[in-house]
Amino acid sequence: MPHDALAQLIAGRKPGHTLDQDFYTSPEIFQTDLDLIFARHWIYVGVEPDVPEAGDVMSFDIGAASVIIVRDDDMQIRAFHNVCRHRGARLTPDGKSSVGNLVCRYHAWTYALDGRLLFADHMGEDFDKSCRGLKPVHLRSVAGLLFICLADEPPADIEEMARVMTPYLAPHDVANCKIAHSTDLIEHGNWKLTMENNRECYHCAANHPELTTSLFAYGFGFSPTALDDLDLQQAERYADMVTELQQRWEADGLPAREVEHLSDRVTGFRTERLPMDQHGESQTLDTKAASQRMLGQIKDRRSGGLSFWTQPNSWHHFMGDHIVTFSVIPVGPEETLLRTKWLVHKDAVEGVDYDVENLTRVWLATNRQDAELVGISQAGVRSPAYEPGPYSPFTEGFVEKFCTWYLGRLSAELA
Amino acid sequence: MPHDALAQLIAGRKPGHTLDQDFYTSPEIFQTDLDLIFARHWIYVGVEPDVPEAGDVMSFDIGAASVIIVRDDDMQIRAFHNVCRHRGARLTPDGKSSVGNLVCRYHAWTYALDGRLLFADHMGEDFDKSCRGLKPVHLRSVAGLLFICLADEPPADIEEMARVMTPYLAPHDVANCKIAHSTDLIEHGNWKLTMENNRECYHCAANHPELTTSLFAYGFGFSPTALDDLDLQQAERYADMVTELQQRWEADGLPAREVEHLSDRVTGFRTERLPMDQHGESQTLDTKAASQRMLGQIKDRRSGGLSFWTQPNSWHHFMGDHIVTFSVIPVGPEETLLRTKWLVHKDAVEGVDYDVENLTRVWLATNRQDAELVGISQAGVRSPAYEPGPYSPFTEGFVEKFCTWYLGRLSAELA
Amino acid sequence: MPHDALAQLIAGRKPGHTLDQDFYTSPEIFQTDLDLIFARHWIYVGVEPDVPEAGDVMSFDIGAASVIIVRDDDMQIRAFHNVCRHRGARLTPDGKSSVGNLVCRYHAWTYALDGRLLFADHMGEDFDKSCRGLKPVHLRSVAGLLFICLADEPPADIEEMARVMTPYLAPHDVANCKIAHSTDLIEHGNWKLTMENNRECYHCAANHPELTTSLFAYGFGFSPTALDDLDLQQAERYADMVTELQQRWEADGLPAREVEHLSDRVTGFRTERLPMDQHGESQTLDTKAASQRMLGQIKDRRSGGLSFWTQPNSWHHFMGDHIVTFSVIPVGPEETLLRTKWLVHKDAVEGVDYDVENLTRVWLATNRQDAELVGISQAGVRSPAYEPGPYSPFTEGFVEKFCTWYLGRLSAELA
Repeated sequence: MPHDALAQLIAGRKPGHTLDQDFYTSPEIFQTDLDLIFARHWIYVGVEPDVPEAGDVMSFDIGAASVIIVRDDDMQIRAFHNVCRHRGARLTPDGKSSVGNLVCRYHAWTYALDGRLLFADHMGEDFDKSCRGLKPVHLRSVAGLLFICLADEPPADIEEMARVMTPYLAPHDVANCKIAHSTDLIEHGNWKLTMENNRECYHCAANHPELTTSLFAYGFGFSPTALDDLDLQQAERYADMVTELQQRWEADGLPAREVEHLSDRVTGFRTERLPMDQHGESQTLDTKAASQRMLGQIKDRRSGGLSFWTQPNSWHHFMGDHIVTFSVIPVGPEETLLRTKWLVHKDAVEGVDYDVENLTRVWLATNRQDAELVGISQAGVRSPAYEPGPYSPFTEGFVEKFCTWYLGRLSAELA
Repeated sequence: MPHDALAQLIAGRKPGHTLDQDFYTSPEIFQTDLDLIFARHWIYVGVEPDVPEAGDVMSFDIGAASVIIVRDDDMQIRAFHNVCRHRGARLTPDGKSSVGNLVCRYHAWTYALDGRLLFADHMGEDFDKSCRGLKPVHLRSVAGLLFICLADEPPADIEEMARVMTPYLAPHDVANCKIAHSTDLIEHGNWKLTMENNRECYHCAANHPELTTSLFAYGFGFSPTALDDLDLQQAERYADMVTELQQRWEADGLPAREVEHLSDRVTGFRTERLPMDQHGESQTLDTKAASQRMLGQIKDRRSGGLSFWTQPNSWHHFMGDHIVTFSVIPVGPEETLLRTKWLVHKDAVEGVDYDVENLTRVWLATNRQDAELVGISQAGVRSPAYEPGPYSPFTEGFVEKFCTWYLGRLSAELA
Repeated sequence: MPHDALAQLIAGRKPGHTLDQDFYTSPEIFQTDLDLIFARHWIYVGVEPDVPEAGDVMSFDIGAASVIIVRDDDMQIRAFHNVCRHRGARLTPDGKSSVGNLVCRYHAWTYALDGRLLFADHMGEDFDKSCRGLKPVHLRSVAGLLFICLADEPPADIEEMARVMTPYLAPHDVANCKIAHSTDLIEHGNWKLTMENNRECYHCAANHPELTTSLFAYGFGFSPTALDDLDLQQAERYADMVTELQQRWEADGLPAREVEHLSDRVTGFRTERLPMDQHGESQTLDTKAASQRMLGQIKDRRSGGLSFWTQPNSWHHFMGDHIVTFSVIPVGPEETLLRTKWLVHKDAVEGVDYDVENLTRVWLATNRQDAELVGISQAGVRSPAYEPGPYSPFTEGFVEKFCTWYLGRLSAELA
C-alpha cells in the first residue's frame, strides 16, 4: 500500500470506533505493521529464565526475521540475527538448546556466544573474520522481562518504562523464577484483534467463567446505568477494596497505583495492582495460590494481581505465587501467535509445591475462549458489510488507546 | 485487473470458444467475479425448508460476505449480513441453528429476528440503538427456492422469472418438502468450469453411467452425423416421446415446454420438463421413484424431470417424488463449493417411504465424476499451452450461452 | 517485477557472493525463472527407460505446463503439451501409464501417439481435425537422458553437448537400463538453493557421512591452508590417483578428463570421471558394486564415478554397475521438487543381482540431509538481516559458475 494511501486511511479514522477493514485484512498493511511497528519498537519476547544457564539459546521468528537470544559465559544475555554470514543459513532451529559455540551446520562456520566469527575454513588468506560476526539485535531486560528491538536505533524511552516499572516488578523477582509451563496458540485473526481483545473486560462476563472467578470485571470500567442495584453495591464495595488494599500494599513495599502511558509514549505501557475476588490469592479456579513457594520478597498471599501491559504486543499478570506472561507475534494478516508462559519460584518443586494443571487451568481456558472471539471477529470484519463500530466509552477506553497508539506510531514512522 | 484491460479481454473473445485462460485462473478476475457477478445478481442459496420453523437460522459465505437467513416469528424469511454492528464479530457460525434472538457472543449485543438491535450494555445514554440494526440483504423466494442479492438495487427481472417459473415449480410444492440429505463438495476448479460442465451432456456418455440410466443425453443436443443408424432411431423415438409427453403433462397441469432466457436476461434462466428413460419415474439407479410419497398435487409417477437452470449459479432437477437442487459458490480462483440438497415430501418417512442411499446414489456419483472433470479442466487451462478451443455447435450451445451471459454481464457492470 | 528493476538487480550483484534475497524469495522472480529459464532452456526430465515400450506414457509438470512424453509404435519418443485442444482438459494424470491412443476422458477426443487428432464427435462438417493436433514439445535424448525445451526455438548448442557427452555416457548404455527405484522429495527452498547445494562439497564432511564413504571431497576443491599435514598427504595421494586412473580409464575406452562449460554455454554442463574411496566400485555404504550385472560394455568394477551436471536443473552419477540421476523442478518460490532415479541393467534381477535398500541407501540419506540444508538456507535468506555472503574461492567455484550462468541467461533472455 502506497504510504500516502495509508496516511489517508489513518487520517480518515473515526475516533472511538474500530479500525477500517483494511487494517485487519490487507496483506500490505500487515507488512507495514511488521516493518514500522514490530521492526521499530520494543517487542516483548520472553523472560530471563528462558535462558537460565551460560550457553542457553532461545530462537524465535518475528516476521521474516529470526532472532537468537543467548546467555554468554559471563551470564550476559545477548540477541543476534539467526543468519550465518556465509550463505545465510539459520544457525539454530526455533526453540531452545544449549551450546558451547554457535556452529552453522551447513559449512561449520563457528561463532562465539558474543557473536564473533571464530572459524571459517577454506576462505583463503584474504578473508577478514572480524567483518563477519553475527549481526546484533538490541536487547533490554526490564526486571527480568526481555524486550528486543530490530531497529538500528531503538526508542530511547524504554529506559523511562524501566525506571517506572522496576519497583512494581522487582518484588516478584523474575530472574529467580523458572518456566513451569509454556504454550503456543495460533489465533485466526489479525494481531490487532488479539490485542484489542486483551484491552477490555466487557466480554469477560459472557465468555470467561474461569477467569472471572478471581478477576473483578469492574476493574476495567462499567456504565453505572448498565448495573442493577445489587451490581452497583458490589462495584462500590470493590472501589473501597481497591483504595484500601492499594494503600496497604504500597505501605508493604508493593507499588500498586495505576500508571498509564498507553498512548502518549513510543514505548507505551500501563500497570496497576488490583484486588482479586474470593480468597483473592491467585488466578486459579479456587482463587488460592497455585504455588506454595512465594515469589521474591512477597509474604502476603493476598498481594493482588499486578497487571502490566506494553504496546504493541504484551500483557502480564504478576501474582504473589506465580506469573503469567503473554507475547503476541503476528504470523499473517489473519493469523497470530499467542505465546503464554507460567512462571513459579525456581525452587518450587512440581507435584510438591505446585501442580501444573491447577496452575494453568484458568488461562488455558481463557486463551482458548479469546482465540474463538478473535476468530469470529476476524471472520466478520472481513465482510464487505463490515463498517467500524463504536467502542463503549465506559468499558473500551483502553482499546481506543491501543488504536490511538497504533495509528499514531504508524503516522510517526511513515513521516 | 484494471477495468480497461478486462474490457479488452472481453472484447477479444472468440465466439463459440472456451474463455481465455485468465478467466479461469486470475485472482483479479476471480475478485471481479465476486464483485460484479456474485454481489450484483440474484444468487440461489437454498430452499424454504432450510429454515422450516420460526427462529430457524442458516448462515453461509459468499466471497468475504457471510449471510444469515432467518425465519421470524411471523414466518417471514429474511436475510441479513452476519456482522455485529459493534466490533464486527460473526453472530452465528456457518450452518444451521435455532434461536430466540440473534445474540453476539462477544459482548452480548442482541438483535431481534427482524434485525433490530434490542440490547447493547455499557454504551451510554447517547447511544442510538435504532441506527445499529443488522444490515439487510435482499431475499426472494421463487416458489420455495431462495435467491439473495447483495447489491443495494437488485436486478428487477427476477419478478419476470418468478412469473414464468411459478407454474412450472408450484406443482412440486417446495415449501412442503423437507431436506432428506445435503452435501458440500469442493471442486478444484474455477466456478465457471463447474457451470460450463453442467450446461452440456456431451460428456455424459463417457462419464456418467449412473445418471444416463434415466437421463437421455439426446435432450441436450447431438450432431446427426455423429450417430449410427441405431442411435438415430433412438433419437427419433426420443423426439416423439418428448412431443407426446409434453402435451400430456401440460394437459395435466404440469407446464413442460422449454423456456430459455439464458443469455438475454440479467436474471438468466432456462427450464424444460423432459422424459426419462426406462421406468422413467426418477433419477435413481432403477429409474423408479425414490420416495413413495409424491410431491404436491402430482399424481403421475411418470411426470418426467423438470430441469431448471439459473445464471450464474444453480441448476435443479424436479421430479414427481423428489427434488435435487444445486448451488455453486466460488471459494477461490481454482476452488468452488457445490452444495447439493435432496428434497422429499415433508411427511415422507425415512426408511419407510424412502431410503437415503437409494435417493442420493445417482447424484453423489455424478457430482464426484463432474468434480474430477472440473479438476482436469482446471489443471489443463492453467497451462501456457492452453488456448480457447471450439464448442460443438450441436452439444455445447448452452455452454456458449453461459459464456455469453457472463461476459455480457461483466461488460454491463463495468460500464 | 518490471524487467528494468530485475536488470538492475542483476547488474548490482557482488561477484563471488550469494545472490540477493529477492532471487530466493520473490514470487515475481520465481515466475521469471519459470518463463526465462525453465521455459527457454533444455530441461532434464527423465530417461529413455521411463517409457520402455510402445504406448508408454509419462506426464509431469514444469510450472503451470504439463508435458506428456510418449513412445510411439515406431519406438520414437515424443513430447506434447498435456492439454486437450477442445476444452483444455489434461489428457493423462501425473505419472506413468500405457495407452493405445491418447483419449481425453472429458468428451473422448482421441489423439494418436504422434499427436494427430483422430476422433472428435459432434463437431460438425466444417470442423478441421488437422488443426487440432496436440501441441508438440521439443525433445532430445542425449545417450538416453531426456531433455525437453518448451520454447519454440530451443538453444541449438545441445548438439554440442551431445557430441561431447555421448562418448562419456554411451559406455553405460542408459537405453538398456531399467529404473530400479524412484523418489520425489519436496525441498523447502528456492530451486537455486537446491542447485547451489549440489555444486559444492564444502558441506559434505559435516553433513554426508554415507556419501563421503565413497566420495572424495577433495575432488571438488580445497584450501591448502585449511588442511593439516595428514590431510595434505591424503590430498596428494588423491591427486596422483586421479592422474593414474583417468589415464587407465581413457585407455580402456572410458573418457574421464574434465570438460567444463558451466557458465560459457547456453546449455551449460560439466563432466569428469573421478576415483572413489575404499573398494572404489560404487556409491554404496560398503563402496562395492550394488548390482552384479555391470552396465553396457563396462568390465572394470573400479571404473570410478562419472559426474555429469547440466544447467539449470540436473546432476548425475554414472558408475559401472548403476546410475543415479537427479532432476530439479521448481514448485514455488520456496518449494522445489527433487526427482531421483536409480538405474540398473535391464536384465539385473531384484533380490538376486541387486538389493534396492543397498542400492538406494546412500543417496536417500544424502538427499534428506541436503533437503534439510536447503530448508535452513531458505529460512535464513528470508531474513531482513540476510546479506549476500562470500563464496570460498577454493570450494565454491562451481556455485559461483551456477550463479554466473543463471544471471547471464536471465540478462540475455531479458534483452
